[in-house]
Amino acid sequence: MKPKKKIAIQGWPGANHEIAAKAYFEEDNLEMIPCLTFPDLFQTLKEDRSIYGIIAIENTLVGSILQNYTMLKDSDLVIIGEYKLRIKHQLMALPGQSIEDIREVHSHPMALAQCEEFFKDYPHIKLIASEDTALSAKLIAEEKRTGIAAIASELAAEMYNLNIIASGIETNKRNYTRFLVITDRALTETDELLEQDRINKSSLVFSLPHDEGSLSKVLTVLSFYNINLTKIQSLPIVGQEWEYLFYIDLTFNDYKRYLQSLDAIRPLCKKLKILGEYEKGKQSYPIPNGNTIEIANHE
Amino acid sequence: MKPKKKIAIQGWPGANHEIAAKAYFEEDNLEMIPCLTFPDLFQTLKEDRSIYGIIAIENTLVGSILQNYTMLKDSDLVIIGEYKLRIKHQLMALPGQSIEDIREVHSHPMALAQCEEFFKDYPHIKLIASEDTALSAKLIAEEKRTGIAAIASELAAEMYNLNIIASGIETNKRNYTRFLVITDRALTETDELLEQDRINKSSLVFSLPHDEGSLSKVLTVLSFYNINLTKIQSLPIVGQEWEYLFYIDLTFNDYKRYLQSLDAIRPLCKKLKILGEYEKGKQSYPIPNGNTIEIANHE
Repeated sequence: MKPKKKIAIQGWPGANHEIAAKAYFEEDNLEMIPCLTFPDLFQTLKEDRSIYGIIAIENTLVGSILQNYTMLKDSDLVIIGEYKLRIKHQLMALPGQSIEDIREVHSHPMALAQCEEFFKDYPHIKLIASEDTALSAKLIAEEKRTGIAAIASELAAEMYNLNIIASGIETNKRNYTRFLVITDRALTETDELLEQDRINKSSLVFSLPHDEGSLSKVLTVLSFYNINLTKIQSLPIVGQEWEYLFYIDLTFNDYKRYLQSLDAIRPLCKKLKILGEYEKGKQSYPIPNGNTIEIANHE
Repeated sequence: MKPKKKIAIQGWPGANHEIAAKAYFEEDNLEMIPCLTFPDLFQTLKEDRSIYGIIAIENTLVGSILQNYTMLKDSDLVIIGEYKLRIKHQLMALPGQSIEDIREVHSHPMALAQCEEFFKDYPHIKLIASEDTALSAKLIAEEKRTGIAAIASELAAEMYNLNIIASGIETNKRNYTRFLVITDRALTETDELLEQDRINKSSLVFSLPHDEGSLSKVLTVLSFYNINLTKIQSLPIVGQEWEYLFYIDLTFNDYKRYLQSLDAIRPLCKKLKILGEYEKGKQSYPIPNGNTIEIANHE
């Protein structure tokens, strides 16, 4: 039997990071390593180079998770894949409890904020911030706490035998998170993790002087090489008023042509760094009745 | 005496939106209209066209507030100014209380999340999500609640006579928020709110087909007209896999040249909308001892 693949996830088992990890790796032989915060996750990967990591990088409601971009840029880790997940928040409690029994709801502050509207109809319920969505579910189950509900995923409800008392309570249903799969850069250089002909996406970061036209030159050169831009985000460098960081995602059909385009833009950029070259991701698409189905993404 | 200028703010009096509003308008004759949520604020401005609004639009830690970009794009409101504020979170309670007395801390989920590290040293303290930072402070003062602290601004501590028991408890000190001042578009067309020769910044939104080079064409044309790009953010249009929205901020020295550049890019964009033309903002800069001073921003 193959050894288990170890995956560091942010949050406890049953949190969205585990759902994304399972969907991405499509195999059962996985060992999840829960990390309470993103800095903890980066530290875990630094200490054991054989571990893969999965991190949320952007969400359709709150935008990019800038902290993760910064840690990725400053690390020796590299992106080897991506997965897009529709986020659905479920309200869960011990079996037998109904919404009228609930006095407190525990969850991560971000999940509480995304469900604020729902709780306006229940002003008697106190919203309590916890370290993690799935951990809140786990504690209710373990300590058999009545009167308390958690906001967490369907997977968490299953794992901890809780009852879903309200489903899809997020205010905005267009709630998607894009996850990146990361690993040690040295590993990808020795192991051929992905055949070159399957690479069709890349994430870069570079800085540019704050000159008129410096970004347009870079993008024009990329377009001459038939490289597609699927994301761009500028970030002022705090304390350096005149310099900007740009995070961009590119897609392409011809890997060699893409390498040539990098050579062409390198002299125009400062500190160009390739954050990863990988295969465009699968995603969980919404279907009209509000459920999601897993289909491959053939953009 | 002039009638009071009415300003809709998100949050209760004493929240960061009020601090930004006072710093921007630089006058005392202001009447703050607290709105609990951003959608409430947009509704308030829709119902009374004489009210100004102030909204957070981006933060150095969490990135752009995409919801506000969307509501702005879909409204008849226009940006007339901006202000950048360093965000400092203070822990406050009734006079005489110390950190050892505190069992619960109440604040907005975002503020709780930004101070998570601080509370790791105080595992006995329960973090409770509230609707607003300043409202949490107000309730402690009004109900004379001991054992409870709030995370809110220095202004809130002053207004509600609370004692600051820990100052600057945010995990990351590079915490800046950019606020936009908005008003009815029709108002700016009749009233000359700002002399043309003081306009040196503009915010635009447009969509582009997902073609190689469509963005580089637009940016190249802008650079031919000596227009500077100070921010760019792409946003996939959910449900329209092949179309993207771009939010950009431009700065320039010559207003007429800027108008010509808009004419030049209009045929290249779909649905170009000017979100506002205004004067580059002031900001509260950090100085080495960690305090902030108000100075004009002469980029």
